[in-house]
Amino acid sequence: MRQRGQLVDAALDKFVPRRDYFPAKLHSAVRHSLFSGGKRLRPVLVLAAAEACGGSARDVLPAACALECIHTYSLIHDDLPAMDDDDLRRGQPTCHKVFGEAAAILAGDGLLTLAFELMARCPVRDDRQLAAIRLLAQASGMAGMVGGQMADIDAEGEEVSLPLLQYIHTHKTGRLIQASVLIGGALAGGTPAQLKALGVFGETMGLAFQIADDILNVVGTQEQLGKSTGTDSARGKATYPAYFGLEESRRQAQALLERGLAALEPFGRRAAPLRALANFTVQREV
Amino acid sequence: MRQRGQLVDAALDKFVPRRDYFPAKLHSAVRHSLFSGGKRLRPVLVLAAAEACGGSARDVLPAACALECIHTYSLIHDDLPAMDDDDLRRGQPTCHKVFGEAAAILAGDGLLTLAFELMARCPVRDDRQLAAIRLLAQASGMAGMVGGQMADIDAEGEEVSLPLLQYIHTHKTGRLIQASVLIGGALAGGTPAQLKALGVFGETMGLAFQIADDILNVVGTQEQLGKSTGTDSARGKATYPAYFGLEESRRQAQALLERGLAALEPFGRRAAPLRALANFTVQREV
Repeated sequence: MRQRGQLVDAALDKFVPRRDYFPAKLHSAVRHSLFSGGKRLRPVLVLAAAEACGGSARDVLPAACALECIHTYSLIHDDLPAMDDDDLRRGQPTCHKVFGEAAAILAGDGLLTLAFELMARCPVRDDRQLAAIRLLAQASGMAGMVGGQMADIDAEGEEVSLPLLQYIHTHKTGRLIQASVLIGGALAGGTPAQLKALGVFGETMGLAFQIADDILNVVGTQEQLGKSTGTDSARGKATYPAYFGLEESRRQAQALLERGLAALEPFGRRAAPLRALANFTVQREV
Repeated sequence: MRQRGQLVDAALDKFVPRRDYFPAKLHSAVRHSLFSGGKRLRPVLVLAAAEACGGSARDVLPAACALECIHTYSLIHDDLPAMDDDDLRRGQPTCHKVFGEAAAILAGDGLLTLAFELMARCPVRDDRQLAAIRLLAQASGMAGMVGGQMADIDAEGEEVSLPLLQYIHTHKTGRLIQASVLIGGALAGGTPAQLKALGVFGETMGLAFQIADDILNVVGTQEQLGKSTGTDSARGKATYPAYFGLEESRRQAQALLERGLAALEPFGRRAAPLRALANFTVQREV
């Protein structure tokens, strides 16, 4: 994972250069959030899924960076005072705390737009690029991540039903993680059976990731995570630990992990990087 | 223009349906801003440019709607309290006044994402769709509209040089208007010479449009425009009338119009709709 993460870092640095760009504040705001120690989970999933389907990591690198641009824009906008109002992210002050709200809104808009430019710059067949663009737009738009975020904010402080909790988790986080593996597979020319298996893997992994995140928000410390903890509970956020308790939440995350790993069996050794990512994602809880 | 505008309205209504979507607040916020009496200038430019190159308006309709989604998202975000803080737009309360800031931020994000989904759904050759996607991303991102908006906000209340004023005008508004005609032409398979001519037309028209907008902000009334007027001057915004005076601004807009119309000559009668749009744009000033 570290080697692939470095490949992504170097590509992002090239796509969002440090120098010469005007207006400077916008580019500084974008780079502040893009290079703040993110795990690069989504781009690395794109690379690993492409490799599982026999494709080349280098050919899908622009799309991998696009996934990180989408993820980063969503964090910048989520942290805004009108949204989750967070001051700290990955141990650093959030974008709007450093550059102001206007620059943070525009940095998010700029990253979201850049993502689609990068999606249209992969050296693979045109039809695969267009399919990947549609996957990304659907997973991150109103029927995906943006919808999940709206439902999450609306549900704050409310009694949340299990279907709504699951809607929020699968949409706010899950759809983009699933899209990462589907996009890697689609760009690499995966067969329908391979894409179906990646879809199952991505879905289980997306939900397991969010459950693990909820657990960390309860049991982690600010020092370990580089962001404020205990915030979900303080805000009355809909979470798995709040609904099921910690132990049952852990059990469900583990069950999802096993289901996801089972879906990868037909890929054999080629899916080793995807398996490592899945284990890391669920077991990163402290 | 009215007939093409109705084609766009009907298509937008289909792409962003009224019913059945969750979360309801997000869809209401999007529709509030998308159907509030916009002139549909950018989408109609896409259709007219495609027709000038011998293409079909129906084939480029999803891309035309994408341009309106980008334009509408930019208005929603620009009106936010952290940006221009506007309460009124097209005679209606702005999105965040009705639905709150969080929903307005997310409605903008959703529209921006939807734009790229629609761009990847035009029934034309794949390579043309990808070229059009790259044009849209460049014109609306950090090197285009988003960069112009950042420079505009940073310049508020400052002494603005002519190069900075021109940067703001060509980027904040101009690039997206130019992209509208370039995208229509690219999707319709325009020749390099045709695309070059459309680029000149689009550039002159984009700047003329913003100058006309600045003039209207000085001489128009709130009743005529459906939005607050005199706001540029009150905020110390960089505008053409503030720099050159009203008469010289009018003269420059007219000169740009003439240069744009000259670029259309090789298209002959096929460019009649583009000519009508150009005249409308510059001469709408009261």
